[in-house]
Amino acid sequence: MNRKIPHSTVRRLSHYLRSLESFSKSGGTVSSEQLAAWGQTTAAQVRKDLSHFGSFGKRGLGYQAGELCERLRTLLGIDRSWKVALVGAGRIGLALYEYPAFRSRGYDCVAIFDSDPEKIGTAWGDQSICSLDVFERVMEERDVELVILAIPADAAQEVASRAVEAGVNGILNFAPIRLNVPDEIPVEDVNLVIELEALSFQITQRKKDV
Amino acid sequence: MNRKIPHSTVRRLSHYLRSLESFSKSGGTVSSEQLAAWGQTTAAQVRKDLSHFGSFGKRGLGYQAGELCERLRTLLGIDRSWKVALVGAGRIGLALYEYPAFRSRGYDCVAIFDSDPEKIGTAWGDQSICSLDVFERVMEERDVELVILAIPADAAQEVASRAVEAGVNGILNFAPIRLNVPDEIPVEDVNLVIELEALSFQITQRKKDV
Repeated sequence: MNRKIPHSTVRRLSHYLRSLESFSKSGGTVSSEQLAAWGQTTAAQVRKDLSHFGSFGKRGLGYQAGELCERLRTLLGIDRSWKVALVGAGRIGLALYEYPAFRSRGYDCVAIFDSDPEKIGTAWGDQSICSLDVFERVMEERDVELVILAIPADAAQEVASRAVEAGVNGILNFAPIRLNVPDEIPVEDVNLVIELEALSFQITQRKKDV
Repeated sequence: MNRKIPHSTVRRLSHYLRSLESFSKSGGTVSSEQLAAWGQTTAAQVRKDLSHFGSFGKRGLGYQAGELCERLRTLLGIDRSWKVALVGAGRIGLALYEYPAFRSRGYDCVAIFDSDPEKIGTAWGDQSICSLDVFERVMEERDVELVILAIPADAAQEVASRAVEAGVNGILNFAPIRLNVPDEIPVEDVNLVIELEALSFQITQRKKDV
């Protein structure tokens, strides 16, 4: 069943959770309509999204906000912390490393790697930057579960393959290539040019419609 | 028709284009199967993706690589350049500003805004950082078409509304909130925590499956 959950549903779960978290400080119940407004979708879509994961809420009574929060956290796998390694100590790497929401959500950066001899051995906060030469050893010693690749395209596939070999569970990929990894290793790509192209596509098509 | 093109299709178009560009230096034809391998999808999906946009290729002969490149560029709206303003001269802003693929794809940063008096008036490359106080004037003078928001959540909605008011065509949003803008203004959200949550979701579900 799980592999059929659409990507867009998972993203909406994150949005529902975010909104609920500010709401549920005060407790109480929320309706599908409220969740829909927060997630910029319809109440029917909210019910469908949540129905993938068993029963939530009571007809006509809405959802218990605190309980729904808990269950969304469990579903999203953020009722625990994750050990993350960052590969690439460049500008994007640094922006990520200092991204506040990153830590507060339990994504714990336990290692930073780079191939630049000038960077290796220097530290960001309490993390000293490691050489890729010791990648496998550090990945194992620090029990890394997720890898963030913030390196150029021509280096990304090799590091991805080494990370898979080293037992990584998932990869967040900022390199502008599609990684070739086994099906059971999830990869999320963040490609800024593709995001911009999605924008210019929509604008261009819209102008044609007019 | 255009509003029904799935987001995932648009993303695959970007991937096909990227692969074609390296391929078509040598000219020749490509098959749906080749495009499928590059886009990590199936040949049937490639044909379906391209069929949204009229006829491409000849049955049994594949696609003319150079011609397909051209048509994808036109579809994605990157057969022209786009004037972009960056709001937020922090770390993410700087990483974006220096992102090489950004310029090479015709996304031209014509203005940078920040609210920090220490940053205003300093320069990145040939761009001097402007105060948000002159946002509307600069947006108009420089004919800005796209805005990239790399600012905290609590400031993003106000700037988004001002950008819409100033006639922006689309927004790339790095702030971790869902922006409320008119339907006709496309917004692409890049939310790093949501990307990580999508990963931890998949890993968590997969472990349950086993």
